[in-house]
Amino acid sequence: MNTRPPAEIGARLQDVETPALLIDLDAFEHNLRRLADKTKGMGVRLRPHAKTHKSAVIARRQMALGAVGVCCQKVSEAEAMVNGGVPDVLVSNEIVEPRKLGRLAALARQARIGVCVDDATNVDAISAAAQSYSSTIDVLVEINVGSNRCGVDPGEPALALAQRIARSPGLRFRGLQGYHGKAQHIRSFEARRAAVAEAVEKARDTRALLARHGLDCEDIAGAGTGTFAFEAQSGVYTELQAGSYIFMDADYARNLGEAGGPVEEFVHALFVYATVMSTPTRERLVLDAGFKALSFDSGPPKIADLDDVEYVAGSDEHGNVRVTPSNRPLTIGDRVRLIPGHCDPTVNLHDWYVGYRGERVEALWPIARGPGY
Amino acid sequence: MNTRPPAEIGARLQDVETPALLIDLDAFEHNLRRLADKTKGMGVRLRPHAKTHKSAVIARRQMALGAVGVCCQKVSEAEAMVNGGVPDVLVSNEIVEPRKLGRLAALARQARIGVCVDDATNVDAISAAAQSYSSTIDVLVEINVGSNRCGVDPGEPALALAQRIARSPGLRFRGLQGYHGKAQHIRSFEARRAAVAEAVEKARDTRALLARHGLDCEDIAGAGTGTFAFEAQSGVYTELQAGSYIFMDADYARNLGEAGGPVEEFVHALFVYATVMSTPTRERLVLDAGFKALSFDSGPPKIADLDDVEYVAGSDEHGNVRVTPSNRPLTIGDRVRLIPGHCDPTVNLHDWYVGYRGERVEALWPIARGPGY
Repeated sequence: MNTRPPAEIGARLQDVETPALLIDLDAFEHNLRRLADKTKGMGVRLRPHAKTHKSAVIARRQMALGAVGVCCQKVSEAEAMVNGGVPDVLVSNEIVEPRKLGRLAALARQARIGVCVDDATNVDAISAAAQSYSSTIDVLVEINVGSNRCGVDPGEPALALAQRIARSPGLRFRGLQGYHGKAQHIRSFEARRAAVAEAVEKARDTRALLARHGLDCEDIAGAGTGTFAFEAQSGVYTELQAGSYIFMDADYARNLGEAGGPVEEFVHALFVYATVMSTPTRERLVLDAGFKALSFDSGPPKIADLDDVEYVAGSDEHGNVRVTPSNRPLTIGDRVRLIPGHCDPTVNLHDWYVGYRGERVEALWPIARGPGY
Repeated sequence: MNTRPPAEIGARLQDVETPALLIDLDAFEHNLRRLADKTKGMGVRLRPHAKTHKSAVIARRQMALGAVGVCCQKVSEAEAMVNGGVPDVLVSNEIVEPRKLGRLAALARQARIGVCVDDATNVDAISAAAQSYSSTIDVLVEINVGSNRCGVDPGEPALALAQRIARSPGLRFRGLQGYHGKAQHIRSFEARRAAVAEAVEKARDTRALLARHGLDCEDIAGAGTGTFAFEAQSGVYTELQAGSYIFMDADYARNLGEAGGPVEEFVHALFVYATVMSTPTRERLVLDAGFKALSFDSGPPKIADLDDVEYVAGSDEHGNVRVTPSNRPLTIGDRVRLIPGHCDPTVNLHDWYVGYRGERVEALWPIARGPGY
């Protein structure tokens, strides 16, 4: 495994080896403060999603600004967070393998641990794991609020699961998980708001149904970088799980704000640093960063700072870039900063964050990357 | 960094934690032998591409069957190969950063190292690095044979570079690199053959031009899993750089053979093992493997062994699977083997190969994964 970082503290940015994952620390800190400021006094808690960054260093920075803990999607992520000093982790996802449930129950001896369920037999399995470790695991019922991924339907199916959790030894019923993933990337402000309004209604009705059966929801959890303001204003959601806001990416930057222009709440803080490795024609050059340095699930990266060049096609280790022949600012050895199409799976390709301020490398933070088993 | 493997030697396959990268060792060994057998007596050398596997263990297995060494795309890959016991590595790619050239020149003190160039200033930089370490680096001129990525045009531009290499201290001119990447994935057998025929002509003509100027090409290198038989029969290519043949993937399996049916030279030996984590409706279930466990650049994975289920959409940690309602063979906790759309960038998402034979885990091989700096 290649765990040597691509730079040293104090190095000049231009001397970082490529491809490398850069954090512009000023921009990152701006984003950190921005979400904390925007949600202050709104009566909601922040529990940012660590699936984005997979870094306990960043999680602790988020908590220092008021976050109550973080979310994860995988047990391995939760372990990395707890081992890195995060005392409160919600796995906002279903965990079904017996070995993983054992690890989760063991972790609940060290930190406050929550997990989501959408299946009755899974409730029983989590209860058995918790009893085996004499630990207590908080459990949320995931309801499908519109994304059609995991989750039971709102209403009666959620009630049945909540009742089962409430009577299961080792478990504590905590509330509802209702994340509308698809709404995050709806471009129109009004359409995003409308999608979240439907999710809020489902969560509100289910909460009321549970209350009529004597089950109180401490948490109604969800929201992401594209919609958090709507959930925060809903009067229903209690915890916000935005993750990408710390970094931004090309896809989130395509969302539109209330006035119809680009959303400008957060700024690009994450880049893949790449080198021009070939200039075969006047119209085309090649970068040293492709599928193994950038995730293309939301399209190719944007090239920062330069308007007349476009990353048009990637391959495993290369990026083909179209340049305007009349104005060719780049030559072999030049560096460019790429804005990833999608930040989370791009982060997952790298072992190190190279944090820089101005032109100097200031931080090297390891990434608990991996497929997450 | 999560370097704990997802299984133990001797474990039952069904107890491997997911998502995990599996190698069916019988199928893998079949593929290893198959390429060696098919090219035996054809007067070409095998230099398989280690960009596919990033494993010195696998490289040494390839050499035990006759390969003369391996190719890499990155200096970090070359370091991993040499450190893992491979004495002969060709970087079939351009390396331009001064730090990386220093590392390459240092590595050439430990092993036979080759690299490709498509730029005169790069030739000078490699020469300077080699002199600085008193090492000798073999250099091939990369020519563009049809992929329009790196490489100079065949003919005079290649001659100029070859002459420059030949007179540069510390460098040894070795020949031409002419890899037709785009031809690998042309579905029709005849169209693939025609594309390679054009590449062969460009390489032959350039070789002849260089010979007229007193420069002999020890190697004409290229070819991949989709076309190697054509280059092997060309009488021009001397080294074959196929990589994916050891594993296969869904994309290569879409290529057609001479009779119009699927190519059956190699079998699927690489899988991502996944678990059914949610069964929200009768038509749909969710797997625990998405963009962080599988590369989607060549489409979603295929589900092995099962005909009535389809992986229709991925997200970061999930896969949505469509099932035939009348016949639902899968339930929560069940495991499935996924055939990746594209093997190389999928391998790069994992830290460990879990090699199994029958139903038992037999090998755990670390992967020198990473963006490759």
